[in-house]
Amino acid sequence: MVKLKIPDHQVAGHQAKTGIIGPLIDDSGKFYKPLQDDERGSNELAFYTSLYSDPRIPSNILKFFPSFHGTEVVDASDGSGLHPHIVLEDIVSNYTNPSVADIKIGSRTWHPQSSEDYIRKCLQKDRETSTIKLGFRISGLRSMGPTNQLWQPHRKVLMDLSAEDAMLILRKFVSSDGNVDEPDCVFASRVFVHVLEELLELKKWFEVQTIFHFCSCSILVVYDKEEIEAKKSARAVVKLIDFAHVVDAKGAIDHNFLGGLCSLIKFVKDILAGLSDVETSNPKP
Amino acid sequence: MVKLKIPDHQVAGHQAKTGIIGPLIDDSGKFYKPLQDDERGSNELAFYTSLYSDPRIPSNILKFFPSFHGTEVVDASDGSGLHPHIVLEDIVSNYTNPSVADIKIGSRTWHPQSSEDYIRKCLQKDRETSTIKLGFRISGLRSMGPTNQLWQPHRKVLMDLSAEDAMLILRKFVSSDGNVDEPDCVFASRVFVHVLEELLELKKWFEVQTIFHFCSCSILVVYDKEEIEAKKSARAVVKLIDFAHVVDAKGAIDHNFLGGLCSLIKFVKDILAGLSDVETSNPKP
Repeated sequence: MVKLKIPDHQVAGHQAKTGIIGPLIDDSGKFYKPLQDDERGSNELAFYTSLYSDPRIPSNILKFFPSFHGTEVVDASDGSGLHPHIVLEDIVSNYTNPSVADIKIGSRTWHPQSSEDYIRKCLQKDRETSTIKLGFRISGLRSMGPTNQLWQPHRKVLMDLSAEDAMLILRKFVSSDGNVDEPDCVFASRVFVHVLEELLELKKWFEVQTIFHFCSCSILVVYDKEEIEAKKSARAVVKLIDFAHVVDAKGAIDHNFLGGLCSLIKFVKDILAGLSDVETSNPKP
Repeated sequence: MVKLKIPDHQVAGHQAKTGIIGPLIDDSGKFYKPLQDDERGSNELAFYTSLYSDPRIPSNILKFFPSFHGTEVVDASDGSGLHPHIVLEDIVSNYTNPSVADIKIGSRTWHPQSSEDYIRKCLQKDRETSTIKLGFRISGLRSMGPTNQLWQPHRKVLMDLSAEDAMLILRKFVSSDGNVDEPDCVFASRVFVHVLEELLELKKWFEVQTIFHFCSCSILVVYDKEEIEAKKSARAVVKLIDFAHVVDAKGAIDHNFLGGLCSLIKFVKDILAGLSDVETSNPKP
């Protein structure tokens, strides 16, 4: 049986600790997500199964999803015994010191078919966080410098961000050290130029796709500072994750996800535009 | 004092009838909207005042708003005496037999600063109508043929449309007679090609503007079948109306309006694409 361990770099979602079942990873780049007992589990499994067999999904869009390796029954992280897991690509497995941002997209995290109780809970959280204001919320984020400057703001800090706060957090995410007040944004152009390309590619698809509505789904941005510094070819990766609340689009585009995605795109564009301003006002000798 | 009358062609919103105060028009192309007593009235007035004095609004965007002529105290439509009114452009005044669609944009018609009671009411309506599903709802619509075939579906019919229903309604809106089951879409290309251009111009602005969030605002589409048939130059007009619930954007784009706008754009594009399909499969002799 493969030896599984608790991932080091998770920034959001259910995390494995004593008494709580969470995801596991192996050393071959696979991520084991506990299959939730309720419809969330079956829904996410059905999503992955349909995604990789649906000819309507263009191949340039499939790259945004973690690869899927079926399900496997393995020992649960909490020691409670065998439990079915969805086996996915471990997105951060190729990185030594990944910087990771988990951004939940959309100004509504629930869909109309959900239970009243679930809608009430989600709506409250959407109003307490930046979800309704910004069209997204940063669920978790860490930035890791080559000399181990870890910066990982507490989830509570990330909850209710104003536009200005979110801008600062995202700028810190692409700086050499997020702990300092004035972020240097030295990784911004290397990371966000490519992230922007990826987000614009996703946007193009979301403007036309009437297959899925992605409720409560996140965009994961991962990059490695050391790699970016060392190699010209190193780039950030952008992935979609968390599909427990994906529903049939019923003929309409996913205007909720698309609106939030456009909002995030505006932030990334503004950060990049800010860089050129600085470069223009401080020309290199 | 100018002689005012109740407009003939209104399809949505508060309508003047006995005992209820509603808008009035004069014969010089002005629309008198009763100033609501509560913050909705002062909010809409403040919006129009700021709109036409804000240098950040590009001139190509100002054309989407009704022109604004201040306020005037006139006899209310319900005979209750003098009442202040916002004086606006009467968008349909130049048309003999206007076909009109009023489409409330966005999957959320309330903003977080609203009262709990107001949010509860809006949310219920958003869930009961197509607002959450489609990102917009058709609040009212009439199509008027040159030989007086009026088609004006009841508001209740328009409430909870599926994507398929909304598509049919929008196709009927640009057909010679909306009352028949199989719409001929004879006005679709003449009307919707231009409407699409206008919506795409709006979309471009909504992708970047962080000035206003337009909650519960409508897009009004107006055209005249007789004019379209008679003149090559006749075109549909696209306007934004109803600004009682516009709020400060606080640094984020209006992802809620933008998402709904993109959803409407997809419908219009699909209708136009359907036309080319028919033209391709039924080539003219």
